[in-house]
Amino acid sequence: MKTISKTIKFEDSLELECGTVLPSFELIFETYGELNKDKSNAVLVCHAFSGNHHAAGESDLDSSIGWWDQMIGPNKAIDTNKYFVVCSNNIGGCSGSSGPTSINPANGEIYGADFPVVSVVDWVNTQKILMDRLEISKWELVLGGSLGGMQALQWAITYPKNIKKAGIFAAAAQASTQNIAMNEVARESIRKDENFHNGHYLKNNTKPKKGLKTARMLGHITYLSEEHMDLRFGRRFQDAESKVARDVDFQIENYLQYKGEKFSDAFDANTYILMTKAMDNFDPSMNNDGDLKKALLKIQSKLLIIGFKTDWLFPPKKGKEIQLAAMKSGIESSFVVLDGKHGHDSFLFMSERYFKIIRSFIES
Amino acid sequence: MKTISKTIKFEDSLELECGTVLPSFELIFETYGELNKDKSNAVLVCHAFSGNHHAAGESDLDSSIGWWDQMIGPNKAIDTNKYFVVCSNNIGGCSGSSGPTSINPANGEIYGADFPVVSVVDWVNTQKILMDRLEISKWELVLGGSLGGMQALQWAITYPKNIKKAGIFAAAAQASTQNIAMNEVARESIRKDENFHNGHYLKNNTKPKKGLKTARMLGHITYLSEEHMDLRFGRRFQDAESKVARDVDFQIENYLQYKGEKFSDAFDANTYILMTKAMDNFDPSMNNDGDLKKALLKIQSKLLIIGFKTDWLFPPKKGKEIQLAAMKSGIESSFVVLDGKHGHDSFLFMSERYFKIIRSFIES
Repeated sequence: MKTISKTIKFEDSLELECGTVLPSFELIFETYGELNKDKSNAVLVCHAFSGNHHAAGESDLDSSIGWWDQMIGPNKAIDTNKYFVVCSNNIGGCSGSSGPTSINPANGEIYGADFPVVSVVDWVNTQKILMDRLEISKWELVLGGSLGGMQALQWAITYPKNIKKAGIFAAAAQASTQNIAMNEVARESIRKDENFHNGHYLKNNTKPKKGLKTARMLGHITYLSEEHMDLRFGRRFQDAESKVARDVDFQIENYLQYKGEKFSDAFDANTYILMTKAMDNFDPSMNNDGDLKKALLKIQSKLLIIGFKTDWLFPPKKGKEIQLAAMKSGIESSFVVLDGKHGHDSFLFMSERYFKIIRSFIES
Repeated sequence: MKTISKTIKFEDSLELECGTVLPSFELIFETYGELNKDKSNAVLVCHAFSGNHHAAGESDLDSSIGWWDQMIGPNKAIDTNKYFVVCSNNIGGCSGSSGPTSINPANGEIYGADFPVVSVVDWVNTQKILMDRLEISKWELVLGGSLGGMQALQWAITYPKNIKKAGIFAAAAQASTQNIAMNEVARESIRKDENFHNGHYLKNNTKPKKGLKTARMLGHITYLSEEHMDLRFGRRFQDAESKVARDVDFQIENYLQYKGEKFSDAFDANTYILMTKAMDNFDPSMNNDGDLKKALLKIQSKLLIIGFKTDWLFPPKKGKEIQLAAMKSGIESSFVVLDGKHGHDSFLFMSERYFKIIRSFIES
């Protein structure tokens, strides 16, 4: 499935949750499948923190395969023969939507660290603006994993009339203390890179690649399950010829070095900071006396919450918390725990059971 | 209990497990209590990776309290009215024994990154040399937590005739893949600090403090239990006046920033790398066809293995593995799982049950 990205520039100003107003902003997005005549078959996919709008198919640009290609396509769980699927890059990102690498219209310079703090609420609001532009009035389904699942939940809360179903996978209604702690270590390693320049590295013609690499190496550990790591790498030594760094002894070290290096070439460090902060700050209960039940009261959509047994970033109990609150608020919801070999990343990989559950939910 | 440190310079050369020979080396150690006439009341305490020889009492030097003062002292679990307790700083350390901050006698310069790779086996060998100098022929007990527990286990393996009992707490017979992965991220953050200079930072009159700080922040997360972090910090925001860093939002971030900064003032980065590598490399089964049972066959001492429920660095199942191998090798051993609120660090904190178990073990 070949895909084409489109970018829309929205000239209206956008007030963010932090209070800052963006005079204008751009969203890059992809679509898969065809919107039907009554515009009743639209699905919104929300990406996780290092994801982007290229969710499925083969990119027109570089032939890369979308991050959720196992989920979205002809005859797949989200069947593009039936559904029209939209995925946009979140603002604050670094894949084409307005973010720290964009030009600040106020002064003609790269935003860098001056790009404002963004939140899950802001992303949902910009996705709603895109929805209006596409003249869609109701999503059949909004879904995502991890930080994408947080957006799906926020959609159900903020725009109850514009969404029929929400799919919240490997997600949480709040990051845990440990999640925040890990994210802070990642941010610290970026901020303390000699090339960070308080976030204005691009103006200084450099990038904090070393810090971003370390951050990603840490992130990667939290995405994999311990069991999977044990099986795949164990305590096996790396053979000398294929070492990517001098001090590597074990295969797991080589793997993390390789993954971290690759990521640091492609991603933006300010975006890493903004996205992890958005994850840490997400908390629908906060303006509801700390009560998630209250936050969910206005939801009109059905919720499908999926947790994965081997996920230690957002373990199944985090999904269970959402379901318990939903039940108490009289919201129709299902909660399923799947095995998932890949830890937190399990939401990315299709299995027979995962397929059936999503199929029956979208067709319900 | 006032304590005094002594340093002994051993002029004999020492061949390390890595093959390198140290022409001479120094060990700094403390002792508590009195050695009895027949020298049958000696106890060796082994420190964990960022610990040192100051295990108990109030330091003569700076009035600081030893890291295991809850365990060792008059009428404490290791009762210094009865036992003579020895604790030395491991070689490769940075608290007075030979290590990367020492002068290399070969060239009169600071060792830095030229200090050789050290191992748990090397530490046990140097502790044996100290034992001989103190004219002790048998330890009543060798004990330690974490990397200290690994040393206690290695003592039982290497010198079966010189040890009656081994106390192995919050430890493992092998670091897991995830342990290695976390340690590699910590090392990466140190190595990529602009002031690291390939480990020769002291010669360059600088220190990789930023990298060491990030490494310690990460380490700290692994020492605490998730439950304890939730209870102690939750998602509470840090009040503005007591923020130790500009970008801090949550209390947990402030705590890690504070702890990391403090540690990076006091500890040596090369030692951090050496100690984590020693932990990763520890594996008594390696020269025994990967069979821990075989490695334990020669043990003559009794083993007390303690795991702590909230420890996710070396969870109780790691202690269980040691006991199962010991049982199969016909070694007398007990395995106890204690609650322990403090995650991996629980071995440092005394409780009524912990006290009773150690008392009855040492007096058995």
